[in-house]
Amino acid sequence: MIIYDVENFPNPLRVRIALAEKNALDSVTFKPVDLMNGEHRSAAFLHKNPFAGVPVLELDDGTYISESPAITEYIDHHFAGPSLTGETAKERAVISMMQRRAETQVLDAIATYFHHATDGLGPELETYQNSDWGQKQHARALAGLVYFDSVLAEQSYVAGESFTMADITLWCGLVFGGFCSVGIPANLTHLQAWHDRVAKRPSIAA
Amino acid sequence: MIIYDVENFPNPLRVRIALAEKNALDSVTFKPVDLMNGEHRSAAFLHKNPFAGVPVLELDDGTYISESPAITEYIDHHFAGPSLTGETAKERAVISMMQRRAETQVLDAIATYFHHATDGLGPELETYQNSDWGQKQHARALAGLVYFDSVLAEQSYVAGESFTMADITLWCGLVFGGFCSVGIPANLTHLQAWHDRVAKRPSIAA
Ligand SMILES: N[C@@H](CCC(=O)N[C@@H](CS)C(=O)NCC(=O)O)C(=O)O
Ligand SMILES: N[C@@H](CCC(=O)N[C@@H](CS)C(=O)NCC(=O)O)C(=O)O
Repeated sequence: MIIYDVENFPNPLRVRIALAEKNALDSVTFKPVDLMNGEHRSAAFLHKNPFAGVPVLELDDGTYISESPAITEYIDHHFAGPSLTGETAKERAVISMMQRRAETQVLDAIATYFHHATDGLGPELETYQNSDWGQKQHARALAGLVYFDSVLAEQSYVAGESFTMADITLWCGLVFGGFCSVGIPANLTHLQAWHDRVAKRPSIAA
Repeated sequence: MIIYDVENFPNPLRVRIALAEKNALDSVTFKPVDLMNGEHRSAAFLHKNPFAGVPVLELDDGTYISESPAITEYIDHHFAGPSLTGETAKERAVISMMQRRAETQVLDAIATYFHHATDGLGPELETYQNSDWGQKQHARALAGLVYFDSVLAEQSYVAGESFTMADITLWCGLVFGGFCSVGIPANLTHLQAWHDRVAKRPSIAA
């Protein structure tokens, strides 16, 4: 199993945390992609992922899987250990819903703000920017953080009482926020408490 | 089990097709939401889905599930019948990836074009429009259709040789396209052939 990625970038981090939760980091070979020089837009990489993003998982039979939740789904079913995507119909649905909320309202909103309303990855890579849209996503992300604070006032983790893929997505959204000055507002104490607790997990602290 | 939705709208349709594939339409009570008059933004509805969209599934224990793929996940595991989300780790990952591609490149891209670069749902509901972003999503959708044509040149369905949730998403993306004049370009013959085949499924033709 091979993962093509850029260490420390927010979407690759989702998959690395999932692997660490499964104690499976050593079962994968990581191959770095030179994203800052546009390698992800080369013909060779587009063959792996036509939509030019990292991470990409290559299975032993040569199948390429992109999209972090799809890769996480694979990791969760392939390796033993506590479930990150749920077992019952209800668990799976709640985790899927909360994961998507963490994605659209926080991670992807912050990513869009970063790429559209800041310098992003620089002029060579940011060939189209729409700063009004980017600012709108900044506002969406802040509203998203308020929403997750209200969720975490009632329960320990994003999708209930266990750590799941939904927590990984929210965590990586906040990591992305660190790249572009979107932090946790001081009044969101439940979100901050969750953050401090999650920061101590071996899959994240290591 | 209750589903709050608007009949014939593209996202609700995703869930209705999934139920029909499972022969389970009769197991659900549908409650209409008066979306054109903004009912989905009322406090009562925001309690069901704070992000103000349909469909929403209410389970018998009172849990609300929003986001069509999360609802489809529930339906797929709760009811018998052919799997829409996959069984093995690899199937689940491939279907999840292709479903997301159908969503971001087609369904959501067309929805964003509709809401931002056309009159959308009208001035009362479209309180923020960004037409440049909408046009960009139109271009993304057309590129998405070209991509899916290339996929369907090689295989019968979006995620392989079986009909899955990924096909449902692409189908509903094209239905959304019908609302705003985004059709299948004449040269995309593989996509058109898939479309004509899928149109005959009992879950869709009925
Ligand atoms: N939806 C994708 C997002 C992947 C993504 O956008 N990754 C970033 C790195 S964090 C990337 O490759 N960006 C390339 C670019 O912006 O050109 C996922 O779930 O993995
Ligand atoms: N991501 C949601 C999308 C739901 C959605 O946007 N539904 C539309 C109807 S097709 C809606 O409720 N729109 C309300 C609005 O635009 O104000 C899903 O997967 O179900």
